[in-house]
Amino acid sequence: MFNRSCLILAAAALLSGAVQAQRPGDVAPIVSPEVHADRRVTLRLLAPKAAEVSVAGELTQGRQAMTKDEKGLWSITVGPLDPEIYTYTFTIDGVTVPDPNNPYLKTGVRGTSSQVEVPGDRPLYYDPRPVPRGVVHVHWYESKSLGALRSVYVYTPPGYESGKSRYPVLYLLHGAGDTESGWVTVGRANVILDNLIAEGKARPMVVVMPFGHTQPSVGLGSTAPANPDRSLFTKDLLEDVMPLVERLYRVSNQPDQRAIAGLSMGGGQALNIGLTRLDAFGWIGAFSSALMRMEPEKTFADLLADPAASNKKLHLLWIACGKQDNLFEANQRFSELLNKREIKHTFLATEGAHQWRVWRRYLNEFAPLLFAARPAP
Amino acid sequence: MFNRSCLILAAAALLSGAVQAQRPGDVAPIVSPEVHADRRVTLRLLAPKAAEVSVAGELTQGRQAMTKDEKGLWSITVGPLDPEIYTYTFTIDGVTVPDPNNPYLKTGVRGTSSQVEVPGDRPLYYDPRPVPRGVVHVHWYESKSLGALRSVYVYTPPGYESGKSRYPVLYLLHGAGDTESGWVTVGRANVILDNLIAEGKARPMVVVMPFGHTQPSVGLGSTAPANPDRSLFTKDLLEDVMPLVERLYRVSNQPDQRAIAGLSMGGGQALNIGLTRLDAFGWIGAFSSALMRMEPEKTFADLLADPAASNKKLHLLWIACGKQDNLFEANQRFSELLNKREIKHTFLATEGAHQWRVWRRYLNEFAPLLFAARPAP
Repeated sequence: MFNRSCLILAAAALLSGAVQAQRPGDVAPIVSPEVHADRRVTLRLLAPKAAEVSVAGELTQGRQAMTKDEKGLWSITVGPLDPEIYTYTFTIDGVTVPDPNNPYLKTGVRGTSSQVEVPGDRPLYYDPRPVPRGVVHVHWYESKSLGALRSVYVYTPPGYESGKSRYPVLYLLHGAGDTESGWVTVGRANVILDNLIAEGKARPMVVVMPFGHTQPSVGLGSTAPANPDRSLFTKDLLEDVMPLVERLYRVSNQPDQRAIAGLSMGGGQALNIGLTRLDAFGWIGAFSSALMRMEPEKTFADLLADPAASNKKLHLLWIACGKQDNLFEANQRFSELLNKREIKHTFLATEGAHQWRVWRRYLNEFAPLLFAARPAP
Repeated sequence: MFNRSCLILAAAALLSGAVQAQRPGDVAPIVSPEVHADRRVTLRLLAPKAAEVSVAGELTQGRQAMTKDEKGLWSITVGPLDPEIYTYTFTIDGVTVPDPNNPYLKTGVRGTSSQVEVPGDRPLYYDPRPVPRGVVHVHWYESKSLGALRSVYVYTPPGYESGKSRYPVLYLLHGAGDTESGWVTVGRANVILDNLIAEGKARPMVVVMPFGHTQPSVGLGSTAPANPDRSLFTKDLLEDVMPLVERLYRVSNQPDQRAIAGLSMGGGQALNIGLTRLDAFGWIGAFSSALMRMEPEKTFADLLADPAASNKKLHLLWIACGKQDNLFEANQRFSELLNKREIKHTFLATEGAHQWRVWRRYLNEFAPLLFAARPAP
């Protein structure tokens, strides 16, 4: 793990104004997380005065207590675990925080957690390989729709810079616990696409990752509250983000070359936007979507009214949800409605709960299906 | 501040797998930081079981104790403060962590802190204004020099996409407490450049921000320790980063169109690299540089040997340090050596300590000096 014992580095850190992580009077650095060769993970926290420290998140099955040694070092070893990327947080006497010794973070608008990767014997689909890599671009823009300064992440595939042609484009939406950086820093969408493209499994495409909450993006000063009218995200996407992307990138504006997909809150948004705008989006993906407050018969009245016309426009409607997800039943009911009303779609009932390990996998399965030549009807 | 009271959002967060910030049994969200109209800042933390909570960082003069109310809510109000961006951390019974209710973070390889902006009456030089904006690009690359996967941030100025010409390029290095994202997420280099360019004060330029530590970048799995040979950063910059940038961007490879600058550790690196490679870099900036372990007479023997030749190549050598910085004397001594050996340079003794508020200002003063037409000798 991170070698923090180098004295030169430590001296430089003191001089750099760096905020020192916890090591009051302690010379030895705290190594946390430590991933063992047998795929167990040890977490550590120096907190001599704490009465109770626990860990929770994707790394553990429920909340687990950590134990304290005579020096006040709390620790827990979990696993062996499946090769995967996991989130976790510590709760120290009731206060939930990320692991202060782990720089690998998952940030959100309402909370930060830590991440740890348990590697497999060889690189997995989300691990970087020696293949050509795309680029992630961060744009700040004044959203006229929301009256807020926001940022959008754009992935361009390998070779984009030197090419001339237009690319198909996937608009990829995050969940309520994330921000516009989530599909990159947690979801590894860029690495997954690099790998799929290198293997010839997915068409080179541009992926646009906007901010799904209706407030300014974190980072440039404004901390205005979210606009309570959540539907303004649709306006922001269609009237601010998409024109920006189409002005600056060689992306298609044709529905058969445009997809929209998302997870959880973003899955609900992808359905809401995509299924009411088949003139704009021909490919739709809904991962573990938040559908509870949706009235599909009303929201999608146009879609349902003329199934033949809808099916003609809809190249792919791909709905997936984990069977251990609280949202599973709502997704299943939605698929049943679509079946009853003869709207063509794929419904995948997979293993898994409401977790990122599921969504990375969904992207890896969904992206290869996009923008393929349409089979003759 | 962030409106976290919206019930719909809270429900969505529960469903999204978001890690919930601390609010055990508490309905009211914790608002922290809260910036008041009179430029005071209130910080809050719910920690009923904690015996001692304090705050430290750029926000406060030294460490300050917070006080607890009957519900276990700790708080402190500081200021009024100068309009500025400040870092801070909480120490809860000896454990130092970022503010769990504030999503605006400063990340580093060894510790994360929180940030808060105290706004001025009107936008300051680092605040976004309604001007054309550049773009920040994130590239991952396999550093052959270090045998590690690393990332580099690249700023392109407004209009870069639609232009054809080559741009001058500034290689901008972070301090030991930061990563390659630091000059953007803490330093706001992109916003400062956007503003300077909009006012006609700086030439449009590409700014390249590499990772200055000799280890893999945080984020894609590998947590290999730093290579103890720190000089390999130079090799990484010259043989990995610069060829990548020159392949993908329209940047100049001429020394009179190339600058290198950095802060603290990065200032030392900029001097070390720039002053020994005047064939590559004609413009050099050193902000509050870490020089303590340097032996300038030996390191810069070639530079010092022929001042006339060196001065001819050196378009600008700009050295600045705050008088309240522990590194001030070392920087002053270095300037005296340069004076004695007749190496032309600027030495600025400014107000300020070893803090980001100084480095943002230095960038704002340094960038306008770059790539100007050279006065006749």
